[in-house]
Amino acid sequence: MFFRVSGHGVDETTLIAVLGKSHPEKRKAFRKGNPQFFKEDERSFERWDDHRIKLLKREFSRFKNAVVLWAMHPWERDARLMKEALKDGPDSYNVLIEVACTRSSEELLGARRAYHSLFEHSIEEDVASHVHGPERRLLVALVSAYRYEGTKPKEDNAKAEAKTILNVIKSGEKKTDNEEVIRILTTRSKLLLKAVYKDYQEISGSNLDEDLKSDSRLQETVQCLCTPERYFSQVLDLALEIDADKSTKKALTRVIVTRADVDVKEIDEEFNKMYGVRLTKKIEDTANGNYKDFLLRLIAKGD
Amino acid sequence: MFFRVSGHGVDETTLIAVLGKSHPEKRKAFRKGNPQFFKEDERSFERWDDHRIKLLKREFSRFKNAVVLWAMHPWERDARLMKEALKDGPDSYNVLIEVACTRSSEELLGARRAYHSLFEHSIEEDVASHVHGPERRLLVALVSAYRYEGTKPKEDNAKAEAKTILNVIKSGEKKTDNEEVIRILTTRSKLLLKAVYKDYQEISGSNLDEDLKSDSRLQETVQCLCTPERYFSQVLDLALEIDADKSTKKALTRVIVTRADVDVKEIDEEFNKMYGVRLTKKIEDTANGNYKDFLLRLIAKGD
Repeated sequence: MFFRVSGHGVDETTLIAVLGKSHPEKRKAFRKGNPQFFKEDERSFERWDDHRIKLLKREFSRFKNAVVLWAMHPWERDARLMKEALKDGPDSYNVLIEVACTRSSEELLGARRAYHSLFEHSIEEDVASHVHGPERRLLVALVSAYRYEGTKPKEDNAKAEAKTILNVIKSGEKKTDNEEVIRILTTRSKLLLKAVYKDYQEISGSNLDEDLKSDSRLQETVQCLCTPERYFSQVLDLALEIDADKSTKKALTRVIVTRADVDVKEIDEEFNKMYGVRLTKKIEDTANGNYKDFLLRLIAKGD
Repeated sequence: MFFRVSGHGVDETTLIAVLGKSHPEKRKAFRKGNPQFFKEDERSFERWDDHRIKLLKREFSRFKNAVVLWAMHPWERDARLMKEALKDGPDSYNVLIEVACTRSSEELLGARRAYHSLFEHSIEEDVASHVHGPERRLLVALVSAYRYEGTKPKEDNAKAEAKTILNVIKSGEKKTDNEEVIRILTTRSKLLLKAVYKDYQEISGSNLDEDLKSDSRLQETVQCLCTPERYFSQVLDLALEIDADKSTKKALTRVIVTRADVDVKEIDEEFNKMYGVRLTKKIEDTANGNYKDFLLRLIAKGD
């Protein structure tokens, strides 16, 4: 029996069956696991073993982490996700953008409240003192936003803002430093920004997020604000790759848990449209054990 | 009988007595009023009369405006004050700073909520699209802040931030553009900033707000955050000058009404310390009629 540690949880039933047998050969097969996944560990036995244990523990912790994250109040959950992203450094700052831009104004506010009582700082204070360089300004403004959520964006405004952004992009100057681009993306309502996205497409013939490719923070911001289902589908697709790195894989738990009560159904449909396979099928094929069952249960909840 | 229109309300009782008599001489004396105050109107009778009526109406409206402002929920009141400041333009932007920096985090949040439902925009959206130049960044960050309000600022942080600000001031560069100064003033908790103010005094031997004199927005920000009673006393002192301009005088209503339930008692004491006269005495001497009575009643409430 082959036991896989794929980075998407452990199959507890198989594990118990394998470890229950005391044949040394079986245990060796278990320790070896998926050679591709552990290729860096073949150098020495000592290191291999330690590292393997660590990886195994991590796989066990996926189920636990998912359950713990799910059990939390959404405000606390988002506050902790943002804190962790700050601790993990620049590679995880996309989580700050995700939380700031895909939650409702009241939800983000709740997360800011929870952050106060959990960490004795404001989130904007921590972002401002941890993040450096041009992205600081964008991130501080995003986590501080309390966007208007009414249903009447002015069409004229959208067209004018789309033109403003197009001019900046055409000029070739650095977008992260541009006052106007930052102002539009950090203060305008999502409904208006969706209209801006549409107008931009009409004027320029291309997608705003694609034209911002050279600046990944701004690209993520636009995707989270204007096309969240598409954004989440992309994140999930990357997280479900067998050779994705640690922090990319972590996104699977985060996205499913945080979107289960919100729009996991729409994300599932968008995922199917984009990749020609249902999200549930993909998770079934990739994840393992209790972790897999739990994720599937959360997605089914959305029905 | 001499009837004064000083810009601080009308004395209704005297007014009724004066106008009730039909001697043309008396009415002329009333129309003339305080010649200093109306000197620009002596050119022609027509203009004089029109203008006088407008001014009289304004004096009557002081009492009405104070009552209306007082009757409002504090969140709505702050939202409307900010909207009005934006409409009035740069000379009134100090009101944005005042509301953003002297309210508690929850109060400012409440005002942002009220702003949404009253004006179908977020306050930061309106500030960002109305304000131009270097002050935009400061103002947007101030109205978006949700400061931590716990009781444990780290002493080390305060000293380090005080040094950072001192270095910027010493360097002679424009402070409004300085990332670090903006970061500290817009994200740090008030308790920490008060410690920064104290540490700055110890290191440099002068007051932070005085060293920021060349940049009035930053100076107001520091005063509102670190020494609010002193800030309000100064605003009231200016508003109570007989020849203050229209918008300066308006501050009398705003400050008394918005601070009546908060710290008007402390402001009264600070005012006495700074100017050697009780605030109540000064108002009694300067304001008139129902307006005066109403303001004094609000101050007495603080006892």
